[in-house]
Amino acid sequence: MNKEKKATLIIKNIGQLITMSGPAPRIGEQMSDLGLIENGGIAVAGEEILYVGKSEKIEGQAELAEGCRVIDAKGMVVTPGLIDPHTHPVFSKTREKEFEMRTQGKTYMEIAESGGGIRSSVRDLRETEYVTLKEKTKERLDRFLSYGVTTLEAKSGYGLSLESEIKQLKIINELNETHILDLIPTFLGAHEVPDEYRSDRETYIDIIINEMIPAVVKDNLAEFCDIFTEDGVFTIEESRKIMQAAKDAGLKLKFHADELKSTGGGELAAELGSISADHLVYISNDGIKAMAKSGTVAVLLPGTTFSLSGKQYAPARKMIDEGVIVALSTDCNPGSSYSESLPIIISLAALQMKLTAAEAITAVTVNAAAAVDRVGKIGQLCEGMQADITVWNMADYRELPYHYGVNLVSQVIKKGKLAFGK
Amino acid sequence: MNKEKKATLIIKNIGQLITMSGPAPRIGEQMSDLGLIENGGIAVAGEEILYVGKSEKIEGQAELAEGCRVIDAKGMVVTPGLIDPHTHPVFSKTREKEFEMRTQGKTYMEIAESGGGIRSSVRDLRETEYVTLKEKTKERLDRFLSYGVTTLEAKSGYGLSLESEIKQLKIINELNETHILDLIPTFLGAHEVPDEYRSDRETYIDIIINEMIPAVVKDNLAEFCDIFTEDGVFTIEESRKIMQAAKDAGLKLKFHADELKSTGGGELAAELGSISADHLVYISNDGIKAMAKSGTVAVLLPGTTFSLSGKQYAPARKMIDEGVIVALSTDCNPGSSYSESLPIIISLAALQMKLTAAEAITAVTVNAAAAVDRVGKIGQLCEGMQADITVWNMADYRELPYHYGVNLVSQVIKKGKLAFGK
Repeated sequence: MNKEKKATLIIKNIGQLITMSGPAPRIGEQMSDLGLIENGGIAVAGEEILYVGKSEKIEGQAELAEGCRVIDAKGMVVTPGLIDPHTHPVFSKTREKEFEMRTQGKTYMEIAESGGGIRSSVRDLRETEYVTLKEKTKERLDRFLSYGVTTLEAKSGYGLSLESEIKQLKIINELNETHILDLIPTFLGAHEVPDEYRSDRETYIDIIINEMIPAVVKDNLAEFCDIFTEDGVFTIEESRKIMQAAKDAGLKLKFHADELKSTGGGELAAELGSISADHLVYISNDGIKAMAKSGTVAVLLPGTTFSLSGKQYAPARKMIDEGVIVALSTDCNPGSSYSESLPIIISLAALQMKLTAAEAITAVTVNAAAAVDRVGKIGQLCEGMQADITVWNMADYRELPYHYGVNLVSQVIKKGKLAFGK
Repeated sequence: MNKEKKATLIIKNIGQLITMSGPAPRIGEQMSDLGLIENGGIAVAGEEILYVGKSEKIEGQAELAEGCRVIDAKGMVVTPGLIDPHTHPVFSKTREKEFEMRTQGKTYMEIAESGGGIRSSVRDLRETEYVTLKEKTKERLDRFLSYGVTTLEAKSGYGLSLESEIKQLKIINELNETHILDLIPTFLGAHEVPDEYRSDRETYIDIIINEMIPAVVKDNLAEFCDIFTEDGVFTIEESRKIMQAAKDAGLKLKFHADELKSTGGGELAAELGSISADHLVYISNDGIKAMAKSGTVAVLLPGTTFSLSGKQYAPARKMIDEGVIVALSTDCNPGSSYSESLPIIISLAALQMKLTAAEAITAVTVNAAAAVDRVGKIGQLCEGMQADITVWNMADYRELPYHYGVNLVSQVIKKGKLAFGK
């Protein structure tokens, strides 16, 4: 223990302390190793973890700063703060009518014709005032936090014009400053071709490459660039062109890939050294092999399949067997998956993708850190790392997928501060 | 408005006030009628609803008692307090390891051999001290309340001996007295044949009929008697015998029927005038017709199919089309469905059973009242009825299934008192 720093927070008597210490990220059987310490304890100094180990060791050793907060986590589980690596949280209008049309058997075409679909969110984003959008997004961040998240990636992609994409990214960046959560901004101008360029997609691609990306990079508004690579959205060739330009401009890459069909998105993500490829319901065997080789993280989104009443989930077990780094996310968005709860995603991953509780927890901590390029900083509880910690009101970590649809979070600590609970 | 009573609570400016006024219970297309009032208001006097209508009317007319609480529900939805008509909340030991064995492909037999299954909950119930069981159950009731429930049915059935069945029922009755929720106790001694009578089931049936039922009735410990009618548990003939005895002793009836196979449980429930038959995944066409005719409520439990990774859900649409009264429940229990959230059940009903949001809300309010024989008392917001009210942090009731896995409850009012939220 670092003797020069005084503990400002200690958590003691932790029934199951899940440190995730060890390999980062984790593949294959490593995903089952939670670095679990029974009767564990954590000491935090400021924003940083000072000590992780057995509870009895902190009580005698840690020198406590004045006003040091002490949490007794007897019979409870403690994990790293969860990381959600794929969200679209900046919108105003919810789309519940469209959800009901879908469950009642209406087709995508009928929904689009009635004014639904992603274009409805584009209209909403463009029309809604900045301050309203920011307030609605903030409410969602508060809900993410209450379900145990301490960091989330947040995308633009409902603007689809220079001005309104920047509007979204500015909201994300401002909230990153003012909200206790950490947000990682991703530019997703290539989410769809907007109505005004439907008959001239080349021009829109040109705007993305020559106007939007430079503007985003100039003002440092995003860390990642993402694209929806899919039949009917952006082809593989268009995607390669856009993402190469993004990479050349200094942005890290993410892909929406192989969600509705196998189009080679996973392979392209691997080829371009993308940090992650997401969705992957229909990824090919070659795509799996390529991603395993390149170390591109597979961010799987079972909530989207669930919320679309889909039958087929991404082949998570196969990916794990083949050595792909697997992470999980809510895909929180107003169309295909409206939820801020990673715990329900963990239930879905267990029930529909056959992940164990340990694998699912790995997928929302250390592997999710890899999906946002933050390995070594967050997603693990190790000395010197950021003190992002979730305390759970359960005695065994396996309760997390099993006790479904409810909130078992007791407290959330963000950068050493109590951010949720008491 | 009753001028002699002063309002002790008013809720004003309600965006969507879902009264459920009108037919009770509701069948077929009636299930789509929420009795919705826009910009609604409710006045409550003591435990009773004084006025339901437009918001502008209460503000001038209702005479307010000193200290009258005023809730401004602008942009929010208000519904009757939810009713959960099928739960098994009295247990200590959770069974998360068994859940994981199941998702990892272990068979029912392998789980039973490793000490899992219902018998594990029977051992737990018998061994655990009364006060511990009561405390664990109370925690679950608090969670039910936080997800909008104001009344729930609660079963015994993990005791399977005179003494331990009564232990469970006493806990339920005591909590009904001390906890703000209303509990409706159900005797479920015929949940399974206990180990000690596996080779002599006739004797156990005799004990149920001649010892347990009389003891339960004598001390007024239960309002309902329930049974697990299924191949390998209690046959149709055994069920008829037990349930006829329960009926003769003055208990109302419920059945676990046609959950794993079509065995004629739905038909038997209808024949005996049972208040409800529950599960019904494999109900026959004849069973549906019989239930429609007898007015036996179908309590559907999609969370159980979900949590068992099942492919087949109860044929809800067919039942609605045929005029069966359909209700929904969590089936909260430590084996096949551990959740206290009716909202996640509503999401599952929409996604997997194709209920509309309106039908699902009907199924957890007025139709759930019918499943516990409380029509006219709860499940609707009408003058003179009990003031059990849930206020939701959403602008459109259709958000309830759509915004899944999170808690949108803002406040819960039980018998006119604020029981959750602020």
